[in-house]
Amino acid sequence: MGEFRGVVPALITPFNGEGALDESAYRKLMEYNIREGVDGFWIAGGTGESVLLSEEEVIRIAQISADQSNGRIKSIMHVGALTTKSAVWMAKAARDAGVDAISCVPPFFYRPKEKEIIEHYRAVADAAGLPFFVYNQPKYTGVEITPNLMQSIIEKVPYVAGVKHSAPDFQNIRRFAKMGIDVFTGNGSLMLAGLATGASGVVDGPLCFAPRLWVDSYNLFNNGDLRGAQALQEQGSQLIDLAGKYGMQATCKVLTEAWVGVSSGVPRAPLLPLTVEETQNLLKEAEEIRPGRQTGT
Amino acid sequence: MGEFRGVVPALITPFNGEGALDESAYRKLMEYNIREGVDGFWIAGGTGESVLLSEEEVIRIAQISADQSNGRIKSIMHVGALTTKSAVWMAKAARDAGVDAISCVPPFFYRPKEKEIIEHYRAVADAAGLPFFVYNQPKYTGVEITPNLMQSIIEKVPYVAGVKHSAPDFQNIRRFAKMGIDVFTGNGSLMLAGLATGASGVVDGPLCFAPRLWVDSYNLFNNGDLRGAQALQEQGSQLIDLAGKYGMQATCKVLTEAWVGVSSGVPRAPLLPLTVEETQNLLKEAEEIRPGRQTGT
Amino acid sequence: MGEFRGVVPALITPFNGEGALDESAYRKLMEYNIREGVDGFWIAGGTGESVLLSEEEVIRIAQISADQSNGRIKSIMHVGALTTKSAVWMAKAARDAGVDAISCVPPFFYRPKEKEIIEHYRAVADAAGLPFFVYNQPKYTGVEITPNLMQSIIEKVPYVAGVKHSAPDFQNIRRFAKMGIDVFTGNGSLMLAGLATGASGVVDGPLCFAPRLWVDSYNLFNNGDLRGAQALQEQGSQLIDLAGKYGMQATCKVLTEAWVGVSSGVPRAPLLPLTVEETQNLLKEAEEIRPGRQTGT
Amino acid sequence: MGEFRGVVPALITPFNGEGALDESAYRKLMEYNIREGVDGFWIAGGTGESVLLSEEEVIRIAQISADQSNGRIKSIMHVGALTTKSAVWMAKAARDAGVDAISCVPPFFYRPKEKEIIEHYRAVADAAGLPFFVYNQPKYTGVEITPNLMQSIIEKVPYVAGVKHSAPDFQNIRRFAKMGIDVFTGNGSLMLAGLATGASGVVDGPLCFAPRLWVDSYNLFNNGDLRGAQALQEQGSQLIDLAGKYGMQATCKVLTEAWVGVSSGVPRAPLLPLTVEETQNLLKEAEEIRPGRQTGT
Repeated sequence: MGEFRGVVPALITPFNGEGALDESAYRKLMEYNIREGVDGFWIAGGTGESVLLSEEEVIRIAQISADQSNGRIKSIMHVGALTTKSAVWMAKAARDAGVDAISCVPPFFYRPKEKEIIEHYRAVADAAGLPFFVYNQPKYTGVEITPNLMQSIIEKVPYVAGVKHSAPDFQNIRRFAKMGIDVFTGNGSLMLAGLATGASGVVDGPLCFAPRLWVDSYNLFNNGDLRGAQALQEQGSQLIDLAGKYGMQATCKVLTEAWVGVSSGVPRAPLLPLTVEETQNLLKEAEEIRPGRQTGT
Repeated sequence: MGEFRGVVPALITPFNGEGALDESAYRKLMEYNIREGVDGFWIAGGTGESVLLSEEEVIRIAQISADQSNGRIKSIMHVGALTTKSAVWMAKAARDAGVDAISCVPPFFYRPKEKEIIEHYRAVADAAGLPFFVYNQPKYTGVEITPNLMQSIIEKVPYVAGVKHSAPDFQNIRRFAKMGIDVFTGNGSLMLAGLATGASGVVDGPLCFAPRLWVDSYNLFNNGDLRGAQALQEQGSQLIDLAGKYGMQATCKVLTEAWVGVSSGVPRAPLLPLTVEETQNLLKEAEEIRPGRQTGT
Repeated sequence: MGEFRGVVPALITPFNGEGALDESAYRKLMEYNIREGVDGFWIAGGTGESVLLSEEEVIRIAQISADQSNGRIKSIMHVGALTTKSAVWMAKAARDAGVDAISCVPPFFYRPKEKEIIEHYRAVADAAGLPFFVYNQPKYTGVEITPNLMQSIIEKVPYVAGVKHSAPDFQNIRRFAKMGIDVFTGNGSLMLAGLATGASGVVDGPLCFAPRLWVDSYNLFNNGDLRGAQALQEQGSQLIDLAGKYGMQATCKVLTEAWVGVSSGVPRAPLLPLTVEETQNLLKEAEEIRPGRQTGT
Repeated sequence: MGEFRGVVPALITPFNGEGALDESAYRKLMEYNIREGVDGFWIAGGTGESVLLSEEEVIRIAQISADQSNGRIKSIMHVGALTTKSAVWMAKAARDAGVDAISCVPPFFYRPKEKEIIEHYRAVADAAGLPFFVYNQPKYTGVEITPNLMQSIIEKVPYVAGVKHSAPDFQNIRRFAKMGIDVFTGNGSLMLAGLATGASGVVDGPLCFAPRLWVDSYNLFNNGDLRGAQALQEQGSQLIDLAGKYGMQATCKVLTEAWVGVSSGVPRAPLLPLTVEETQNLLKEAEEIRPGRQTGT
């Protein structure tokens, strides 16, 4: 366990009024999170509207991210796509842009055979030549990366460095960690549970608008202050529950604007924005959870 | 029940040696099927590598299909995509190209809310202004169109004409049919079962290389010759089982070349072609099922 | 395909006011169904509150059933239980009582290994020495009998004669039928679909209070009158939907009393009886479907 | 959070050579575990072959357990059954025998409606008048106790004191704990993860033959020694994995005999005992994990 660890927000992708990538907002959001002490970024992933972005947008995000972090913290870029050709193209461009690692969901829509998953992953990992993260998200992809499949992937795909585990079987965190790769729990309400089980860190969307909750909880836990860590984790978990209730992308965009002061537009269709009423309810519910120390940009 | 019925092969998308759309092969395959008596085509659907095609390829297929059928039989074009923008663009272009109807999977990857499914469908149906088919394929999309959801779709989306039902609950065929839409069973081994339950026809991939089995079975069944219909259905079902064993796209491409004489290349990655050994085994198994009357182009 | 076929009501188990088995009602219900032309009975199965009955009650039902049918039609007795010992005991007693065949769910609660299913089945089938029906009901048992597992069962368990298929994969009806066993579709709204696919008959609860719908539909279908068969099947399917809405056991008990004139009490806890309001609504909805020719005892 | 906490082995039910309850072995196993420092017992639960026991055996176990613990530690007795009548009968007898609490799976086999679950639970809890544990084990019962359902249960069923959570959604541990009930994680490899998330303790089978691993890990964790706690948890998790591989009841019986010196026979059919070869393999694998400090009776 090693290189990749700690609190890693899954960044939203801010759009401007025309629905185009808002570079300035992206940079501000990164700076805010770096200042609050996060350990890395998970960029253009599920929270970042990943598969709804064009290849060009994905690459532009890679460039912004690499440029803005400038070696200060690690960026892990999602390059999953429907075709191997597209994922390979983005993997190469991500490397050229200077990100630190890539991640990739298995092929989706068609239910891939194990051999197809491995060939897809091999092509993508080869193209990037960077540390490679498996993205285990069966709810979205219909494919679960089991321990047996992970073992095959590690044997046959180069550069495998870790996994973002967003699947139900929580015991697999331990099983994956024992294979010598870094495991991020993909559920921000289970950071402490994950750390107790062998995970090296956490990746989730709501971290990007309230990172200090997780940063402080992570540090307290590692310093042996379990009760202190749990109190902050509980606040974070309530935010995660809000995202579950209102929708991940929309919730993160509304609260990033409200709490961080970075306007980020609305999710791209088929995802729908919140109605005015939903937005008001979300803001009200969130305000009751809001940690005192969050101060915005 | 009405306009859309009968035996509707889900066409493969033939590629040439460079992996590009092979227009000539596409036209030959259509002619062969028209000659064998099919009632329509399901184009650029799951069997046709749908979501692995570029928007430009989808549109070119629409043009070829409309041009080649030239009013003789109906083409139903799949326009499902990750973004609403892309699906809408293809829907408009499909209408301009002259296809007879469109079909669309619900939004996939992100698990859509009911409202998101309906808004996506409404935008796509509006853009085409053509008879609209819901594509109920939960194995691929993670979303099941239940009777309740279908009722909402029919109320809120214009032009709904039918559904391709590739979901496990077979009773829903009857429930959908009672809503006044045309129902295609999406499983070629269940054509007779579907017809007995209220379906108006069948859509599946293996129909495109052995259409006469289903055409004759369909006619015998409607003429009251149940035993005769069942004997042919059984041969067809064995071909469907082969596609399940070897993979739909690869199986259909190999057997289209072998039985119809139309070369169609290999599936696009992440789908993998069959190995030489798999191809030989498939051909051998298929030959034992092959109907005497199939004669190729 | 052979010995076991046609319309086979899954009988409710009538209770008296004290909640005890009502033998007289049981005999009346059998007579009514025999008179209406059914081909057999599925007794003490899921509809008959099977696993909520004591061993003694199960055996008494076997005796009543054998005595009352007196060789006129076949009774298939369910003997599934939590322990092998109990199922074996009931299997022996069922044989002694003179039923024609037994059926058995696989072991449930604990998820059995394949070997445990086969050993359980072997012990039960050996004990009875009667034609043995596999009861494929994964919704209740958590275990699906797949074609591969069925093949193993046929090879290793004696006397296997058939299967009641109440699982989602409708294609398996054909696959099981090709193994040379009799297949009953366990869903009364899919009788025609099942027959079209290779089933030899149908087993379901609502058949017991409106048997003529299925008897006539079955006969019309086998005589080539598809449309006539479908019209009656549709009435039957609406009754099946009612049972799905209000609960199988309670619906069948209420409508057996109302339509057949046989009082049968309420289901045993944890199953709950319908409230007065639910009963009224059920009766009203059912009356709109009721076939004119049903005349009661 | 309160009364029920800590390390609570799910005891196997030892049988003698004739397959009957072995009281002496039961008492020895309890003594061993009390001496090793456990906080309570989960008796006649899934590991204890629960639903394969007769009512009389369950009650005898309650008496032995109450007598042997003699107020030293708490016993939680499982009384789940197919019928409400049977569960109520066992609940009363368990209270009379002097156990400290009862637990109950929801009704199984028939998929119960929410109202049926609550009525069943209310009858059982009323009958015992003891602290009541919900047993959330959807893999066995087909019913998941969701947070919404749990809220209804707490409102409508008396004496609800806690839940044994053996369901996939790990976040629900926190949600249940916030409702003010004690939560046991039902997976011994996730004790620390559970404690980090709000659980008060752990219940699982393998704890009964190697309790010290969990007792010491639990204490180290609560004293802030995360690394020390994790090292012991890891040994325990490996034993849990063995039980998953070889079967819970058989594994626990073999290792209780080998490590604790208490002979406990073989599981009851339909559960199968291990073959000689499986037993040897299990013992060999377990020996490599065995903690040095385990000393047997």
